[in-house]
Parts: sequence; C-alpha cells; structure tokens
Amino acid sequence: MTLRSPRAATSPLPSRRAARVAPFLAMDVMTAAAAREARGDGVVHMEVGQPSAPAPRAVVAAAQGALAGGTLPYTQALGLPALRARIARHYADTHGVTVALERIVVTTGSSAGFILAFLALFDVGARVAVPQPGYPAYRSILNALDLVPAPLPLRQVDRYAPTSQGLRALHEEAPLAGVLVMSPANPSGTVIAPERLADLCATARALDLRFISDEIYHGLSFGVPTDTALRYEPDAIVINSFSKTWCMTGWRIGWMVVPEWLVRPVERLAQNLFISAPYLSQVAALAAFDAVEEVEAVRAGYAANRELLLDAFPGLGLGRTHPADGAFYLYADVANLTDDAAGFCRRMLDEAGVAATPGLDFDAVAGQHHVRFSFAGSHADCADAVRRLKAWLR
Amino acid sequence: MTLRSPRAATSPLPSRRAARVAPFLAMDVMTAAAAREARGDGVVHMEVGQPSAPAPRAVVAAAQGALAGGTLPYTQALGLPALRARIARHYADTHGVTVALERIVVTTGSSAGFILAFLALFDVGARVAVPQPGYPAYRSILNALDLVPAPLPLRQVDRYAPTSQGLRALHEEAPLAGVLVMSPANPSGTVIAPERLADLCATARALDLRFISDEIYHGLSFGVPTDTALRYEPDAIVINSFSKTWCMTGWRIGWMVVPEWLVRPVERLAQNLFISAPYLSQVAALAAFDAVEEVEAVRAGYAANRELLLDAFPGLGLGRTHPADGAFYLYADVANLTDDAAGFCRRMLDEAGVAATPGLDFDAVAGQHHVRFSFAGSHADCADAVRRLKAWLR
Repeated sequence: MTLRSPRAATSPLPSRRAARVAPFLAMDVMTAAAAREARGDGVVHMEVGQPSAPAPRAVVAAAQGALAGGTLPYTQALGLPALRARIARHYADTHGVTVALERIVVTTGSSAGFILAFLALFDVGARVAVPQPGYPAYRSILNALDLVPAPLPLRQVDRYAPTSQGLRALHEEAPLAGVLVMSPANPSGTVIAPERLADLCATARALDLRFISDEIYHGLSFGVPTDTALRYEPDAIVINSFSKTWCMTGWRIGWMVVPEWLVRPVERLAQNLFISAPYLSQVAALAAFDAVEEVEAVRAGYAANRELLLDAFPGLGLGRTHPADGAFYLYADVANLTDDAAGFCRRMLDEAGVAATPGLDFDAVAGQHHVRFSFAGSHADCADAVRRLKAWLR
Repeated sequence: MTLRSPRAATSPLPSRRAARVAPFLAMDVMTAAAAREARGDGVVHMEVGQPSAPAPRAVVAAAQGALAGGTLPYTQALGLPALRARIARHYADTHGVTVALERIVVTTGSSAGFILAFLALFDVGARVAVPQPGYPAYRSILNALDLVPAPLPLRQVDRYAPTSQGLRALHEEAPLAGVLVMSPANPSGTVIAPERLADLCATARALDLRFISDEIYHGLSFGVPTDTALRYEPDAIVINSFSKTWCMTGWRIGWMVVPEWLVRPVERLAQNLFISAPYLSQVAALAAFDAVEEVEAVRAGYAANRELLLDAFPGLGLGRTHPADGAFYLYADVANLTDDAAGFCRRMLDEAGVAATPGLDFDAVAGQHHVRFSFAGSHADCADAVRRLKAWLR
C-alpha cells in the first residue's frame, strides 16, 4: 500500500511564518557536497563551521563511562547540577566574574539557547537587531517565532564590529526590543574590543533593549582576548556552546547565562519545549573545561590554517578577505570575481571540489559579493583547497 | 567580582508568551523528589514517563562504536539517510504502509517534532485542538508559539478516546486550524480503536483541519494493536520517538513523517532551529528496530506492573482508576480522597516517598481530582509503591 496524498494536486501551504524562513545555504551546500562525494568525487569541506578534530579525550572517556553505566535518563530541564556548577566556575576561572549556578541553563546546543532567549524575552512583532553580515539562524529563528529581525549593518571599514551609532540609528528608524551581538563573529571572525563592548552594553541599557551576547567562539581567537558581555551588562543573556571551542558539534550541547528574573520563565519553556539536553552530552561536557592543552592545540591548528589562507588568498584574486581576529572563518569579498556568490559557490563545488558558503547566508544585501570559507578542517585540507582554487581560478 | 543586577529591584518582565507557559508539574515533582533523595530519603519514582530499563544492547553497542570512531559531526538537518531509510522500512514492516524516506524527518526527541510541526503548519492565533486530559507540553508549546490550544474534552465514559462529535463541536465554537491526537495516550493509556481513528481522520479532512498524530507510545500496549494515522490520512503529520518504546529518553532522538509538500518547509525550519539531532543518538537509533526481543521483554514487564497496580489500587481507595490500554501510566480519579491533587501529591512525596504527578498537568479543569502514576519503573518499585501507599492512605 503506497500512500500518496489525494491532496497532492492542490497541496496545502505551509504557514506564513515557515515560508519566511530562508534555507540555511551552508547546509544546502553540505547536502550538495555529500551528493558529490556519493558519486566518488573528492570535496574539501569549507562550508560548515565544524571542527575536523574530535572532542577532547576526557570528554569521550566520560561519555564511554556513562554509556557503560546504564540508562541515559532525562535530566532536570535546566541541566545536571554538576555541569551547571562547572560552567559557573568557568566564568570565575576565565573571566574573573562570579555567576551563581542557578543562572546557568544547559541547552541542546546554542540553537536551543536562541529559541529559549527569544521566546522568554520577546512578544510577537518585537524588533530585534541582529548583525549583518551575521549567523543566518538568528534571522530565521526570529522569523519563525514571528519576531522581526532588524539587520544592524556591519561595515568592513569598522572591522565588521557593531557600533553604538549604528544601534541608535536602527532604534530611531523603528523602536527595537533587543539587540544580539556576537564576538568572535561569524562570518567575519571579528572580536569586539572591550571598550566597544562596554559602549554597546551601555547604549542598549540607555535604550532599554535586552542584550543577547552570542559567545560561542569564545576561546578561539588569534592574539586578542575574548571578553564576556557579563562584565559590562549583568542582565545580558549569554549564549554559548561546547560545539566550536571543544569540537562537539554533533553532541548538541551548550548553555546560557540568564539574569535571575529570567531563570524560572526559561525553565518553564525548557521543560515543555526540550524536556532536557542529551544526558550523555551533559556528562561528557563536564570533562571539557579541563582539556586545556588539547583545545589549545586545536586552536593553534586554526591559527596555522588562517595564516596559510591569508598568505595564499591575495595570489588567488581573493585579496579583499577580512583578516579574522577569531572563530574559524574567512569572509572573502569576491566582487572582483562575480556578482553571484551562490552561482560562484556552486561552480566552485562542481568544478574544483571546494565547498564554501555563499555570503547571502549572512547578508541579504552585500552577500552576493562574499563567500565564507571555514578553516576548521585540517591543515592538509586547507593546502588542498588552495591548490584546487589556484587551478580553478586561473 | 559578583555580578548582581542593578535592575534587581525592578526586574524586567519576561515576554507575555513565556508567562502563558505553565510549569511542567511532572518535572517540578522530579526536582522535589531529587531534593528528597539528596537528603538521603528514599523515593519511588512514578512521576516522569521514563523507562527504568536501559536502551537495547545493540543501541548501546552502536553508540560505543561511534564514540570510538572519531568525530561526532552535525548531520544533514533531516537526519542521517540510513536512519531515515530504516525508519521508513519500519512503516512497511510494522504497518504495511509504504512511506518514502524523503518524508522522514529525524528530530531531537518528539519535542522538536512538535515545534517543527506547529511552526510549519500554523500561524499566530491559529486554534489547535489538543486532548484534555493530555500531554501538557502540547498546550505549552502552542502557547509559547502564540498559537491557541483548544482543549478537546475526553470523557471517562468514552474511555478517554477523542470523538468526531467532540471535534465538530469544538470547531463550531470557534474555527480550528488543526487537531492533535495521541494513541496510546498520556495520561490515560487509551488506544483509539481503528474505526474511531479513521472517523477522526475523515472528520478532520471534512473540516479542512491539519491532522497531527502523536504515536510515541506505539508498540506499548496490552492486548490491543496500535495503528498509525497514516493508514487513514496520508497527509497526517506523525510524531514519534525512540524515548519510550526503546527506552531512550535522555538520548533525545525521535522522528516525524510529513507529507511531501511539508518536507522542504520543515527542512528549512530544522536547519535553522536545530541544525541536526545528536549524531551519536542517530547512529545508535539505527540499531533499535532490530532489538525486538528486548523491547518485548520490557513491554511484558510493564504489563506485569500494570496488573499489580490495577489489582492493588481498589484496596487503596484508588478504585476509580482507568485501566490503561497502553503506554505506562495509570490515571487515577482521586476525588474520593482530595479536591487538591497537587497538595495530595506533595504530601504523598513528603510522607510516603512516592512521587507521582498531579492531574493539573494534563487537565486544567478535572485535573484537581486526578493523579498520574507511571509504571515504567521496575516491578519491585511498583510493589514498594503499593506498600508505601497502603501504609500512608490507611
């Protein structure tokens, strides 16, 4: 019995909110790259922000122990108390700021953190400033939840850092309810300097905007320190994850820091929307913070990859590439090569076997002239990509 | 440096949508029970729908293999193709219906399935019928997403099965956009008979309502078969999970079956809201469907627990307990004992060390007279609960 819809000829429509959600092009490129690989053709993966290194050994060992130990149950919605305590201690150790464990919310990746933060803070129609270029899921999650993403334009002349003037101007156009900033940023890698971050926090407070700080690339920077917004705005909602710095993408485990007044609303939402983050990943993440040497070795690998690409790109005609302060992306201005970054990326995958993400994921306006290359893969992959691009772009 | 909010005296409010989300009382009871255990006092856990058995051996072995094998990456948003294919085959094997693998969406538990289904189908203000008594997260997720849960009253005289007449009456009060049904049901255990399910599907189609079928307790029934709504409504959105039948709660892994016209909207939402379900759980779940003997042994254990409780409850003054067809709950009418089931459950935990969930989680009206007991624990736990309740209720 094959089930085919009798409605097929006049399929119902999805919701308007779903129709507003753009595809995540990086993931579509990943699917296209997988199809190419299935045909037996090689692909250098620079499309998704995903470390090629495995999670730290102690993390894997903790997971193996939990697997051998019996059931993997739900946890309390806010997470295992031991993990919440360990995350709280991380703020004392790394930033010298004291955060009570009660304010730590363990989440199913930073993705769940955004859903919880947006739902807990904003009602339908609220306008939230998000960086442009920026992580596309901000825009899409806001759209799905009937909130209004307000692009905060970041300019290459400002090193792609958000400015207080830009935020004020956006608020004057139409009132904002909140602002989201990210440092180190995706796709630019920009780290917001401490005085700028303080200034943004003060401006947001003056305008009575909720301040959300995406700190997922914290710990991954090249010669500049990464600072938490909690130092400047104690009411900031901080979103973080073990995915990037600790190479735990597919483990789906992250956390938030929320002000005391938001703990219970977030708990009620988390109980109902997520029940709990994956148990095994919670137990494993407990071991992550102590894997300092392994994490540093991975970071040093990214630094070497970054050097390699920044040295080679000008010779490939990719000289207008922003030199990332952190994260593991290079955001290349390809206006000299194409007016259609999406088509450029398709051809680059088809003809050169290099998968990268068109800028339209990050910037609906200038994105047609940009491509994001992830350098979270191996050094050999980065060198291979340079060779392939040199032959292709000749 | 201790961070305390300078706004503490006049804390900002959470969103109105967050304020509409009720606490999940079962999880609050779980937290209270954990506190009692931390004091060294014993607790029989009958509050959360969580098997005490571990996942099948082959599932654990598959997870161990993946852990030893290297990185645990993101997958495509719709899930590992091999797992999607295996789930599709499950519909042919178990129900004799053919579902294309393209229509299978792997999700982070059924929780993510509800979020995706509601967002993909319904716009702000849409009214969706949900069973009352029923799983409380339906109501809460709808509320959080600015949809309107419309309680579809289920009556003990109807064996807590939804009826077409009830659905029509609710639609006449104010137009519905969709209806959600669950079989076997939480908290009643009721299995909707095939002809009733067919009738509900036909009625929903006649009224042009989207039909969502929560089949998470499929395979867990006692003498009656469980039937998929796909047999009667090819456009049904089916939500399922490995949590209950395969004892994988904390693994956070489930799936949806969606009609073809909804695949791409759901994919775009999933890419942005969840990226992917946990990799390890996806690899492990591949092995679940073949663990037929272990799953059957666990089900037989539930059947014995159910017998034990149904035999003992009348002698405890809990004679007005609905004899569940499936799932692993008994929904007890305690009107003869209390008008305040929440207080009753608090005292039962404090004085008898038995954790169970007040009916208000499932029914805002009649819930004050009901308590849900989960019998997913061990047989010894169920016997212990009966002893404790006998002493306490005397």
